[in-house]
This record gives sequence, structure tokens and C-alpha cells, in this order.
Amino acid sequence: MAESEENYLNSDENQDPLTQKIMFKDGICLENGQYLAPLEIAYQTYGQLSAAKDNAILICHALTGDQYVTDINPISKKAGWWSNMVGPGCPIDTNKYFIICTNVLGSCMGTTGPRSMREDGQKIGRWGADFPAITIKDMVNAQKMLIDHFQIKQLFAVIGGSMGGMQTLQWAVSYPDQVYAVIPIATSSFHSAQNIAFNEVGRQAIFSDPDWRDGEYWRYGVTPYRGLAVARMMAHITYLSEDALNRKFGRRLQERLKDSSFPIFGEVFQVESYLHYQGSNFVRRFDANSYVTITRAMDWFDLSHAYDGDLVQAFAHVKSRFCVISLSSDWLFPTSRSRVIVQALNRVGARVSFVEIATDKGHDAFLLEEPDLDITIRGFLSGIEEQRRLEHYAS
Amino acid sequence: MAESEENYLNSDENQDPLTQKIMFKDGICLENGQYLAPLEIAYQTYGQLSAAKDNAILICHALTGDQYVTDINPISKKAGWWSNMVGPGCPIDTNKYFIICTNVLGSCMGTTGPRSMREDGQKIGRWGADFPAITIKDMVNAQKMLIDHFQIKQLFAVIGGSMGGMQTLQWAVSYPDQVYAVIPIATSSFHSAQNIAFNEVGRQAIFSDPDWRDGEYWRYGVTPYRGLAVARMMAHITYLSEDALNRKFGRRLQERLKDSSFPIFGEVFQVESYLHYQGSNFVRRFDANSYVTITRAMDWFDLSHAYDGDLVQAFAHVKSRFCVISLSSDWLFPTSRSRVIVQALNRVGARVSFVEIATDKGHDAFLLEEPDLDITIRGFLSGIEEQRRLEHYAS
Repeated sequence: MAESEENYLNSDENQDPLTQKIMFKDGICLENGQYLAPLEIAYQTYGQLSAAKDNAILICHALTGDQYVTDINPISKKAGWWSNMVGPGCPIDTNKYFIICTNVLGSCMGTTGPRSMREDGQKIGRWGADFPAITIKDMVNAQKMLIDHFQIKQLFAVIGGSMGGMQTLQWAVSYPDQVYAVIPIATSSFHSAQNIAFNEVGRQAIFSDPDWRDGEYWRYGVTPYRGLAVARMMAHITYLSEDALNRKFGRRLQERLKDSSFPIFGEVFQVESYLHYQGSNFVRRFDANSYVTITRAMDWFDLSHAYDGDLVQAFAHVKSRFCVISLSSDWLFPTSRSRVIVQALNRVGARVSFVEIATDKGHDAFLLEEPDLDITIRGFLSGIEEQRRLEHYAS
Repeated sequence: MAESEENYLNSDENQDPLTQKIMFKDGICLENGQYLAPLEIAYQTYGQLSAAKDNAILICHALTGDQYVTDINPISKKAGWWSNMVGPGCPIDTNKYFIICTNVLGSCMGTTGPRSMREDGQKIGRWGADFPAITIKDMVNAQKMLIDHFQIKQLFAVIGGSMGGMQTLQWAVSYPDQVYAVIPIATSSFHSAQNIAFNEVGRQAIFSDPDWRDGEYWRYGVTPYRGLAVARMMAHITYLSEDALNRKFGRRLQERLKDSSFPIFGEVFQVESYLHYQGSNFVRRFDANSYVTITRAMDWFDLSHAYDGDLVQAFAHVKSRFCVISLSSDWLFPTSRSRVIVQALNRVGARVSFVEIATDKGHDAFLLEEPDLDITIRGFLSGIEEQRRLEHYAS
């Protein structure tokens, strides 16, 4: 083993002990027919599972997220990605609920993905670009294995934004009896041509980095930092609204600059430094093959596809209560997409409420302080808790 | 001279004889204080200049455009970029008007730019990344030199979309007596944080290509094709509306594909092939240093900047008649930006009309068949022609 590869492995080992993990030796059958074994799922839990195992909430993370929803993320040493939403006394209250969050299949934070070692005997080393194509449904099926392991018969709720929202919808469709309620946030029932186009440009940025080396970069102790940073910078623009960018940065120049010379190179406008920071920060924590694998899983997502394009049919057997939430200034998954979901759910007589949160912060707003989002989620969870209690007495 | 560089030069020489050119040996003083000499301007004219020299229309091209507005572009062998708008009997009628279009300063279609040979004695070879920073105002000042050369005292109109629209606004502000009418289309009086952000990601894609070689790629006979293609693909998404992408491509797969295997690599969705085509087509015709130089000129554009941020003051001395045109589905330069222009023009009592063209084709719609755009431009030009005749009789 080359020294460079050794280093690469060591950086993994630093991560591993910090997360809970479960190994499924028999693996998982993927939607494309391939068998992936073993399957290891990295996850975190917060709060206590009740004796009746009826207070579990699964939280699904977005494209580049991880299982560290709240508390301190042991890798970044920063607060978990949704610590304003999840915790004691928070809208998703860890004093009441048992919170589970798994790192999604194909990612790089502990769950089996392109960075994992192959054990299929076909090649030595990591999966890399040979990692099988996965889908949102595969991610959900992997989560289901963990839920079964916990012997949880029904999740009280599945909640997630963006790609996490896709997973919530897939849960409701794939496992109608196992999900009491679903909160899909800032998401869509399908990835649009524009969504695919942005993902593809990000992938092309990665592929055009000579350190990509056909996805075998880990064999050479390199990683396509530059391409991955470009992909991330571009994606980051799509996560913010134009208004948010204007308010945060406008046309303000870097402090040191006088504008009379109109420099071409270097960081000129403040928005550029911000993007560069987002790019360089990201490449330290994320794997390029995982980025490619997961963006493709999003591209393939179209809930209606297995139903001849009829989303109503896709929802025909759902039993969950839905609280669909969109963000008014989100242009990546605009409110119109949530409306499509709600209309299809209405058509099958599902119990669905719909809230468009007024915010100018764009797609990312679901991760930020948005009092209306807090109120909506807290209220919905309280409401369905009450409803379930009444149903329980009635039965 | 290395053979590779020789080839690079030859490819230039193939272009040069096909365009009209004028050399200003004394050059031009740029907004940043630098002196650029000599200055060569490549341009095309269509139609006949009247004896009174009062029928000239200047057309300003966008970021990657050229001087070949109509007829056959001698380089691409295809129709000029606005041949549906400009020509005999067209809304901008070459039977009536003398059309001038110059390749903008900093571009690579014949006008002095980064690909031009330096003649300042400081270095041997091309300007490359040493080409001075230029601004929209510099582009306009260069155009003004050509107009003076034609001894045209007043342009009947200046017309342009996108970056061309920025030039039209700058003309009205810089040379109020020299422009009878102005038609800014799908443009803005300033580049926003989001506009700058997209440009910056494009530049970063170019800089991260190892063949960029600090902008000296031409010395090595290489060119940062991959980075430039990524920049172009991303920019292309911003030129189209989400609806246009959905209509054109939706989630349709490449013909050869069955989707049951969910492939990760290669062209999967049709929108990807389209983007790849746009990228690879672009790098054959455009120079990376020009792309960097011109995107920066756009970033620096803020008409109000020299007036303490007060756009009303910027327009205080305009005399032209304005027809401001926006496109309803343009999210790169949305209608709200045109409204800002119109409101400021109203505030100074300028003669301004404003039309939002209903289209779902996005920013690029101004280059496409849009009957309402044709009607608007044809009508406005007829109206001001009549007006000018009446003014002439009255005086």
C-alpha cells in the first residue's frame, strides 16, 4: 500500500470511532439490481426511545449533510447542522422524541459509499468510481434496515429538506404503514431539467480536474480539490436567493481594494471570498466520488416514474399525514413543486397541510433561523401527537 | 517561435481578413488610467449611411457575441447572431438604417484584446493575462472612436441586450448628445451579487484548469478547454428559464439508455448532451483570457457608482428616448432590474417607454424569435423616426 493511500485511510479512521455504526453483512439489493455487501450504516440518535417504541423521528439529511443533526459534530467541532431545530425544547424536541439520523448510502461520513473498501473480491481497495449507482429509494431502503434493527414498527415522523425531503416522500410511498407523519421541506417529487443541468455542470467540473483520474484519485493520494470546489461554489449560488446575496454582499468590495484600478484577478468582491471559502471548506470534508454518486441519485429521482408518470398513482396507497413546506424565495425547489405534491396528495384524499414560509433567504432557509418554520413544525408535530392519542383511544 | 504558437497565430490570421478593421495608432486611455495602444477595432456594417449621416444604428453585442449581426458569419458559416432582427425588411431594417456593430474591446474576434500582440515593448508576444482591466465604459469609448471616424454626429439609436444593454445605457450617460434613442434589452444598470457570483465560478473553473497556466497558455500551444467549457455550460443554464429547459428536455433520457440500470457516468439525460454541446462548441471559438476580461468588465458595471450610488444622478443629463425591454422569464436580469432603470429615468423626466415581453424562454429570448419583441422594436423605431422628422420641421 502506498504511503499516500495509507494517509487517506488514516483520515478515515479518525472519523470512524466518532459515530454509531451498524453492519449488515448480507448487504442490500439495490434498485438497479446490483447487490451491495456488506452494508454499513453510520447514524446518530438523540433522546430516548420510549418503551412502546412510538416516539421515533427519522431525520433525512441533504446532499452533503451528515448524521450529526444536533449537539456538537465531532468532526467539525461545530454545532450539528440542524441544532436550531432539533434538541431539548426545540421544535423537534429531544426530550419527547427519539431522533435518528443516518448518513445516506453513498455518502462519506461512515455509511458505505465510494470511499469504503470493497469486499466483493473483484478488486482490491476502495469502491471509488466503481461504486454502484444508487437511488433515493436505495437510501430509504437502507434506513429501513436500521429502523427494523431498532424494532420500530412505525416511525412517528420522517422529516427532511431538499434531498432529505425526497427521502421523506419515498418513505411515505415505499412504507405507508411505517410512517405516521411526513414533513417534506423545500423539495420536489422529481428532479427537473434545470436541477439536473446544475448537477451535471458540477460533475463536469470534477471530471475536468486532472486529479480526478477517472475516480481512482485515492490510489494516487490525490483528490480533485479544484473541480470539487468549483462544483460546490456553483451549487452554493443555487442555495441562496438573489435577495439574500444582495443583502449579504451586494457589490461590496474586499476591504483592501480601491476600485479605481478595476482589478481582474484575485478576490475583488466580497461575494467571491465567500464562495471561495465555501469551496475550500467543502473539499476538506467531502469525497468527490460521493458527490458524483449522490447528485446522480437526485437526478434519477422521479416519484411518478414507476407509475407511468402519474404522481397521483404514486401516492395512491400513502397513509401518512403530510405537512408540505416550501420556502417563498427558493428557486432550486420552488413552491410550485410543493404545490404539485400537495395537489397529487389531495387527489388521493391524503391528509395534507401546506405552508409556504415567507423568507428571502432561498433554499438554504430551512437550515437557518426561520421562526415561521419552527412554529409550523412544532405545531404540526403537536397536532398529530394529539391526533394519534385520540385515534388510540378510539380504537 | 514555437510551432504551437505559430499554429495559434495562424488560426488568428484565418479570421482577420474576414472582418472590417480600423487601427487607432494612438490607442485609448482606459478608465483605470492605463493607456492601451494601438487600438484596433473590428466591426461590420450593413446597409447604407445616408448623406446626412443620420440613419446609423449601433448594435452592441453580449458577452460572447461578435460583430457579425446578420448575413452569414464568415467564421462559423452560420447566420449572424441577430439575423432574425436585423436585415432587409426586418424590425431593424437594413434598407433604411446603416447598422454598425463592433467587436467589443477585450474580445477575441478582431478587436484588441488579450489575444492581440503587445506592441508596448514591455514583453514579447500576446497580451494574455496582462491585458489591462477594461470596463463597459471603455468598450463604449472605443465604439465612440469608430463613430467619430465615420463622422457620425448622432447615432439614430443604440440597441443591445444583456451586456449589450449595459453599453446602450452607458452610451446614453456618456454621450447624451450623440444618441437619439436607446433600446436596452434584458439588462441592468448594475451587476448584482448573484451575477458576480456566477461569473466568478466560471472564472474559477478556468483558473483551475492546469492548461490555464496563469493565462499564458498561448505560449505553450494549449488552451484551458475543460475549464472554459464548464464556465460556458454553467452560464448557459442561467440564460434559459426553468420552463424552457423543462419544455426542451424535461427528464428525457438519451435514446440509447434504458433507465433500469441508473447509470452514473456518461450522458444520461438529454439536457446533459445539450450542455456538453454548448461547452465544446464554445471553446472552439472563444478565448479564455477574453472570457475572464469581459466577465470582469460586467462585474464592475454599476452606472450609479460614479454618482455616489444614485442612479437618478447618473441619468441627470440624458437626452435620448428610451425603450426599456425586459423578458418575463429572465432570471439573470429580471424585470425588476429594468424597473429600476425606468424609475430612475422617470425621475429625471426622460422620455421612456417600458415593455415586458411575455416569454418563457428566459434571458436568451432576446436572441430568439419573439414576435412581441419584433413588434416593440419596429414600432419604437418607426415612432421616433416620425418624432425626429417633426422635431426637424419644428426647428
